Parts: sequence; C-alpha cells; structure tokens
Amino acid sequence: MAIMSAAQLPVPPMKWDAWGDPDLAAPLSESMSALIRGMLGVSGEPIAPGIAPATVELSPTRLSSADLGALTSIVGAEWVSTSDADRLPRAGGKSTLDLLRRRQQSQAAPDGVVVPADTDAVAAVLSWCSGNQIAVVPFGGGTSVVGGVDPVDGGLRAVLALDLRRFDSLLDLDEVSGIAKLGAGMTGPQAEAALAERGFSLGHFPQSFQFATIGGFAVTRSSGQASAGYGRFDDMVIDLTLVSPAGVLSVGRAQKSAAGPDLRQLIMGSEGIFGVVTAVSVRVHRLPETTGYEAWRFDSFSAGANAFRRLAQEGVLPTVLRLSDEAETALNLARPSEIGSSDSADDALPPGGCLAITTFEGSPAAVEARMSVAREIFTTAGGQSGGAAPAQSWEHGRFNAPYLRDALLDVGVGCETLETATIWSNVADVKAAVTAALTAALPEPTVVMCHISHTYAAGASLYFTVVYRQEGDPIAQWTAAKTAASQALIDSGATITHHHAVGVDHKPWLADEDGALGIEALRAVKAVFDPNGVCNPGKLI
Amino acid sequence: MAIMSAAQLPVPPMKWDAWGDPDLAAPLSESMSALIRGMLGVSGEPIAPGIAPATVELSPTRLSSADLGALTSIVGAEWVSTSDADRLPRAGGKSTLDLLRRRQQSQAAPDGVVVPADTDAVAAVLSWCSGNQIAVVPFGGGTSVVGGVDPVDGGLRAVLALDLRRFDSLLDLDEVSGIAKLGAGMTGPQAEAALAERGFSLGHFPQSFQFATIGGFAVTRSSGQASAGYGRFDDMVIDLTLVSPAGVLSVGRAQKSAAGPDLRQLIMGSEGIFGVVTAVSVRVHRLPETTGYEAWRFDSFSAGANAFRRLAQEGVLPTVLRLSDEAETALNLARPSEIGSSDSADDALPPGGCLAITTFEGSPAAVEARMSVAREIFTTAGGQSGGAAPAQSWEHGRFNAPYLRDALLDVGVGCETLETATIWSNVADVKAAVTAALTAALPEPTVVMCHISHTYAAGASLYFTVVYRQEGDPIAQWTAAKTAASQALIDSGATITHHHAVGVDHKPWLADEDGALGIEALRAVKAVFDPNGVCNPGKLI
Repeated sequence: MAIMSAAQLPVPPMKWDAWGDPDLAAPLSESMSALIRGMLGVSGEPIAPGIAPATVELSPTRLSSADLGALTSIVGAEWVSTSDADRLPRAGGKSTLDLLRRRQQSQAAPDGVVVPADTDAVAAVLSWCSGNQIAVVPFGGGTSVVGGVDPVDGGLRAVLALDLRRFDSLLDLDEVSGIAKLGAGMTGPQAEAALAERGFSLGHFPQSFQFATIGGFAVTRSSGQASAGYGRFDDMVIDLTLVSPAGVLSVGRAQKSAAGPDLRQLIMGSEGIFGVVTAVSVRVHRLPETTGYEAWRFDSFSAGANAFRRLAQEGVLPTVLRLSDEAETALNLARPSEIGSSDSADDALPPGGCLAITTFEGSPAAVEARMSVAREIFTTAGGQSGGAAPAQSWEHGRFNAPYLRDALLDVGVGCETLETATIWSNVADVKAAVTAALTAALPEPTVVMCHISHTYAAGASLYFTVVYRQEGDPIAQWTAAKTAASQALIDSGATITHHHAVGVDHKPWLADEDGALGIEALRAVKAVFDPNGVCNPGKLI
Repeated sequence: MAIMSAAQLPVPPMKWDAWGDPDLAAPLSESMSALIRGMLGVSGEPIAPGIAPATVELSPTRLSSADLGALTSIVGAEWVSTSDADRLPRAGGKSTLDLLRRRQQSQAAPDGVVVPADTDAVAAVLSWCSGNQIAVVPFGGGTSVVGGVDPVDGGLRAVLALDLRRFDSLLDLDEVSGIAKLGAGMTGPQAEAALAERGFSLGHFPQSFQFATIGGFAVTRSSGQASAGYGRFDDMVIDLTLVSPAGVLSVGRAQKSAAGPDLRQLIMGSEGIFGVVTAVSVRVHRLPETTGYEAWRFDSFSAGANAFRRLAQEGVLPTVLRLSDEAETALNLARPSEIGSSDSADDALPPGGCLAITTFEGSPAAVEARMSVAREIFTTAGGQSGGAAPAQSWEHGRFNAPYLRDALLDVGVGCETLETATIWSNVADVKAAVTAALTAALPEPTVVMCHISHTYAAGASLYFTVVYRQEGDPIAQWTAAKTAASQALIDSGATITHHHAVGVDHKPWLADEDGALGIEALRAVKAVFDPNGVCNPGKLI
C-alpha cells in the first residue's frame, strides 16, 4: 500500500474520485432515496463507499532523472511533480466508468505532471517528449466523460500530464468586434469572471462549465446550454493557437473565410492528438440587458420536438431551448433540487407531458421580438405556457445534476448520460433505438430519460440519462450497456457524439462516421504535427 | 489557324469569352457610356473586340488513343471529346484576367473533356488518370474568378476536364428535416427549380447563381446574398460525397457533431485537390410565406457598418443585409440597371450617404419581429428608412452586374471585383488599405467602390469593385494591381478571400493565412486522397 507523498502542485478543481467541488457533494435526499427504493428495488444503504486516496496504489513513475532534469529546466522545479498526490487527481476524467474505476485499489495514473507557463514552455516540453518517447496528455479541468484524459502511454516509455492551469488569463478583449482571446487553461467561471469585469460574457455553459477549460471546449467541440443563442463552442472560435511537436500553428483571420479548408475545424475536435491548444479567440457578447424566461408544456415529446423544429426552421431561436421527455419531466430531472418532490407550488403547468424551457437574452426589443415568435409557434403547436418560474428554477439548479451520480453509485445505483444528434426525421427512431438498447442491456426496471438541449434547423441533439440497478461487475455491466447504446446510435444513423467527444470510449465507432479514408486523412495530419506519435495517444483515432 | 471541329458535348451555360448567358449581354447604356467617358477620360469607342472562336488556336490534345479508349469504355463515346469546340468553353473561369486572356489568339485548354454519369464513372476516370499521369480538373459552371478551373497540368502528361453536368438531379428531399440531397452538377437555377416543385428553396444566391453548381459552391465555400438569413454554403451542408483516386468518402450524420475534426469542413474549400464532390446534402427551407423589404440610408459607411454590427451582435438578422459605401451608392451600383441614371422616382431617400438593403423572408410573425429589431437598431444608429422600393429594385437586378464588365472591357475600361472578410474593429483599416493599394497601382482616376454583403457577429465581408482605364499590357496592369491588393489584405490582417476561394490567383498568400504547418497538413491530406497528385494540380496549395 502506497503512502501518498504531499501534493506539490495546485490541486485540480474536481475531486479525484467524484464529480465537482467536494464542498457541494451531498448525500441523497430523502425523497430521492425513496424514489430509487421504489423504482429500482434497491435498499438505499451504502454499498460502495469509495477508497481513501492514501490507500490507492499507483505504479512508480517511469520518468527518468534525465526527463525530470529536462522538464525542470523548462518549467522550474516547482512545476514538475511525480508525487502520487499530484498524479492521482490527473489520472482521468469523470465518466461513470472512471468513477467506478476510482473505487479500485490500484489506479492508472500519469508518470508525472508538468505545468508550463507559456507557449514556449509547452513547445519545449513537447520537443523533449517527442524526442524521448514520452506520451503527453493535455489536462484542463479533467471533466472528460469519454476517457479523453486517460493516461494512455500508447506503447511509449512513459506518460506525462501537461496541466494547462497557468494559461489562465484574458489575453485580449476587442470590445468592438466582440472577441476575447482566452488562455486555454481558464475554467468557465474564470473566463466569465474576467469578461464580466469588462461587461462581457462568453455564454458557454455546458454541464461541465464550473470545471472545464477553454482549451478543452475547443478540442472537444463542446456545446453549452445556451447554444441556441450563442452557438456551439466550435461556432464561437475566431482563431486558435496549436503548439505541436512540429511547431506552432495559429489560424483564423475572420469569422468566416473561403481560404481553403477551415483548419480551425480540423484542430477543433482533435482532442490533443495534434498537440496542445494554448489560446483561443472566441466571440463574446455584452452582458445582456434583460433575460426573458418562459416554460412550456407539450402533451408529448414528439409534439414538443415538432414545435422546436418549427422554431429552428423559422430561424429565430431563444438563448436556451430545452425539452425533457415524459420520463425526465415526471422525474423533474430538469430541476435536480426538486427531483422526487412534487411540482413546485409556483408551477402553472398541469402534471404530465413534457416540460420545455426557454430563455431569451438581449436587448428588451430583441427579447420581446424573439419571445413573440416562439409564443406563436409553440401555441400553434399545442404548447401551454407555464410562465417564467419553472425556467428560472431550471437555471438555478442547472449545474447540480452530476453530483447526484456519486451519491447514487454509493448505494449501488448506476447512473450515466450519453448523447447524440440526428436529423429531425430520425429523432424518434434514434430515441427508441437507444432506449431499447439500454433497457435490453440493463436489469429491469431501468429508467431511460431523454432531453433535447441543442436545436438546429435540420435536427437536434438527444441527451439520455439512464438509471439502473448495479449487478455483477459494475464496470463490465455498464461497458456492455454503453457498447449496445453506441452501436444503436451508429446503426440508426446518428452521430456517436454531439458534444462529449470521442476519447477512448467512442473510438471504436469513429470509422463508421468518418470512413476508413477519413481516419487515414486524420492520421496523415497527425503525422505532420506529431511525427513521433506522443500527443495523447490512444484517443480519437 | 485552327478550324474548330463541331462540338459534341452539351455547351456549358456561359459564353467562352464573357460572363453569362449570351442572350443577356448588352452594350453599354448611353448613361453608362457617358459616365465612364466623364469619369475615366476614355472615348467609349470599342478598342478590343474579342476574338472569334473559330480563329482560336489550341494546342493539340495530348491524350493518347489508349486514354481515349479507356475513357470511352467508362462513359461511352458520346461523353468524351477532344474537339476544340468542347475544350475551349472549359478552358477556364471568368475573372477579368480570364476574360483578357480570351482575347488572345492562342488559348490554354484541357486536352479533352469527359462527362461521367455517376459516382462509379468518376471513380473509374480518376483511377485511369491517377495511373496514367493525367491531371483532372472538375468543371461545373466555370464561374471561378480565381483560376480554380484553369487547365493546369502540374507537370503531368495531359489535363482532362471532368464536367459534372450529368450530376443534375435532386436525389432526395427530407421535408421534415429540411434537407435536400443534390447532384453536384446542378446549377443554382436547376436546384431551385427542382426544390420549388416541392415547395422548398435552397436560398443560396451568390452573384454566380445562374451558372455555378452545387459542387462548386461546396468546394469553394461560396456565400450568397441571403447568407445573413440562410447561412454560407459551408454552413448549409449536412453531408457530402467525395470521390477521390483513393476511394469514396461520404461524411456527415447530423448538422453538428463532436465526433472529431469536422471532415466536411476539410472537404469544403478543397477546390478539387482531394477529388471530385459528386453529391451534397444541404439545408433547405419552405418557400417563404412572405418577404419584407426595407432600404435604409446612413450618412456614412462607418455609421452603416456600426448599425450592421449592432444588429448582428443582437443575433436577429435579416435574410439579405447589404451596405454600399458612398462611392457605390453614388454610382447606384447596387442597382445595375440604373447605373448612371438619377435615383428612381420611387426612392424616398435623399441623395448621398450609403444605401443599405434589407430583406426578410419567413412567416408573417417572424418577418415582422425581425424587421422590428432591425428598425429599432438602425433608427438608433442614425439610419433613415427608404421604404421597400429600393430594396425590391436591388433584388430585381441583382445578377446583372457581371455583364457590365464585358461591355467595359470592349471600350478599354478594366473592371474587376475582389473580396475579403475581417473583424469589425479592422473593417475601416482594411477598406482603406485595399483602396490605397488599388489606386496606387492603377492610373488616376481609378474608382474603388465597396460594399458589405455578408455580416457576422464578429465582423463582415468587404466586397470591392474597381473600375479603371486600361493602359499598356492589360494583363500585366491588372496582375500588378491585384497583387498589391492581395498583399494589402494580408498585411492588414484580413483573409485573402471570403467567398471567391483560392485557386491559382490567391495561392501565393495562403501560407500567410494557414502557416507552413497548415499547408503541410493539407498536403498530407491530399497525399491520402490523391497519392499521384492528379486532382486539380496547381490550385490552392
């Protein structure tokens, strides 16, 4: 049993073995406990208490003294560490599989951590690693739910986590153009705070917002809850800087260009396999003068989806646009603080059906104009307005859902999310196929809920939450279910991921989307940027 | 002197030595003639009458009888030609340099033309050419203004034009999702006609709309006059099929995805260097219930640009949004049929200042909502409404401008357009730099006009029209001016092209945008798709 040496580096923002800020973790509420007892037939008693960090076993570091000397000369001794206490919090992301693996005695971890201060230092680290057979895993918030930051050595001599936390500055703000240049290591709240001081906002609020970083948003094609209003992250990027073993590439001169293939769109989604994104210029907007909120109830998911489709095809979208299916609405999952409780007294909506949330940010005139279009289309499509309260309640609790998962795992209840996107005509089939795959692979009764959180003219995302009773080996159990769901996505024509990215977990299905030739093209690009294959091996392709 | 053999293949839609439909060519109007006499000091008498096709000299074809046998076995004898009359109309695009070169006795032309019917035939043609050192130039409408379809052999044995006109079908229409799968050889009007029969529209109206093709729109990242409402072409594409010497790649499962780099965005802008795009699925919309028109006058270009910026940053855009600068407004270039005439009687706007055109398509409620936002922002920004008439007049004549160029060349007046995009804070500097570069390179007085026709939250396109007196060698004269303007774009931080693409003419500046590493990445991708380098050599990279 290893005794953890003291941490030398600043601690990553999340707990090593659970989602989020340790101070915000909470046991299951009584209502939630009752719900899962009734629904899944579990006792609600703790069965899997987790493991104390001090008792975790990590393999000894494989970095040599020459490696450590070189890294120290690049970043300074205080920014290199091989201590277990620094390696363990950078051992992976936060999928349910990750959390289940964290409950084991022996953990895979990077052989060391380096925290460079600037682009030159990143280039020097990559140069050393490229010349010395050391894999490099860029590490931001550690929020990947697809294995994107797993310490895979790819057959190399060792693996190094390259923590981007020192890239934490607002580098430039062009108030006229509405463009901010942000250090890739800034977390969502750091970016918003720096922008708010100047009266601006990025408006990118994925579920991981509180911990994930700008660079991670870019290389995973993140999409936030306000994507209807402000776009996906890959829509927001104006330019970015990639530091690769072969050199530095900065691309982007205008929001849109016809100067050949869009190299930004090649780097976005690259998940660290071409190198390290160190800075990103993104569109920002002035803090909104006003926000309009309106919740709606539709009789069915298909009625709500049709209304969303009509609104998107009309081209006048809210800032946030989200539709829970019947199951998610019944469980009140859109408002985690109220899960299992009866509807709030301030809800004007009758029970049942599907809850839709809309918010509208902007000038009073534009907010009113956009709300009027949504009202006309939703009313025509059979929606009933529920007023502002349920939408405000959703916004209040919108980052809380992932905390529930840890409390559920503690009592033997598996809980995970997965997501996709498809075209409108295929939404119902994809939803049915994934639900069938999950329920067939997991013990009866398994609860599969779904919502639309990203709406486009031609289609929408589908975000599934599955809650099930753990049986047997919980890792094997979920792996089988996830495999079945992934295959169902591909077989039904949907994309393997709309915003969680590929990482390790979705990699087996990427060739189904990109074709063998597409994968070969990506490999050829990687060979240019990373000729020795040290950048985040084992991910994406 | 060659005697042209009879054409065997259908004739491309445009004249070989001038823009557009031969039936629509017209001599200069009296008012236009007077204008250029007064403005540029030219006589207005014809000085360069062009050359009769029958007198043009083409080099003999370099295709061997083995080549012709192989091509014939693939597509049938009636779809292969080496006749001068078939080669000449596919000898290049329609830049001013192209038109000047067409006035020469000797013309570069492809060694032959092949017109495959389907994807398998394209693959077979590419396979033959890849194995036999024959360059392949995909040919759609022949509207390139950057040398994109020049018959460059790239040091290979011969060059073959691959005409896509038989890919002319609406392959599928998903009315729910609003997605149409279109053959890459459909022209703009063919696509609109096929869609209109089903009640739909693509809404992509670049200046080249009447002749250019779907595949060309995709591989050049075309942007149309309704881009504010319906997006650029690269925003509209859901999936596409690329046939390359290495095989066929079809990509795209959803409007947006996080499944790695977006390969669609790698193929779009590839200008034929990876292979031939044969089919494209794009977003389409129901024919609008109503269209709102409103023209505006701003005191200055900067006042108008600021108003456009505020509207785009509010996120509620018209369908068409266009701002002419003072010079373009004074010349009435937004309405070519009225150039040189005094303002129409129905214009409610005082003379001078800058004309802005807005149109709004959609449901009555959405059109009114969007118009109300524009009205509020434009009025606050100092705009004066000129009612619907000038906007309707613009729409009526919007495809006519390029015809003027041929009539001007006939009387020794050079006329060309070039375009870029930049961020808002850089718009004034880029406009000034390009104007200065052109006026310094061309004889006094040279007229440089500019408009914004594509507006984004973070910036806008700038589209320049330059009219000048030809002196000396007209090809050398314009080449020097274009070089100066291109260098000014790059030096001022703008993109080398917003929607005309790169081709031959912008290629020297692409490395300034993409970096040496970026170009190397594109070369690596090309090597995967086109290992023998036969696909459109000499273009882009």
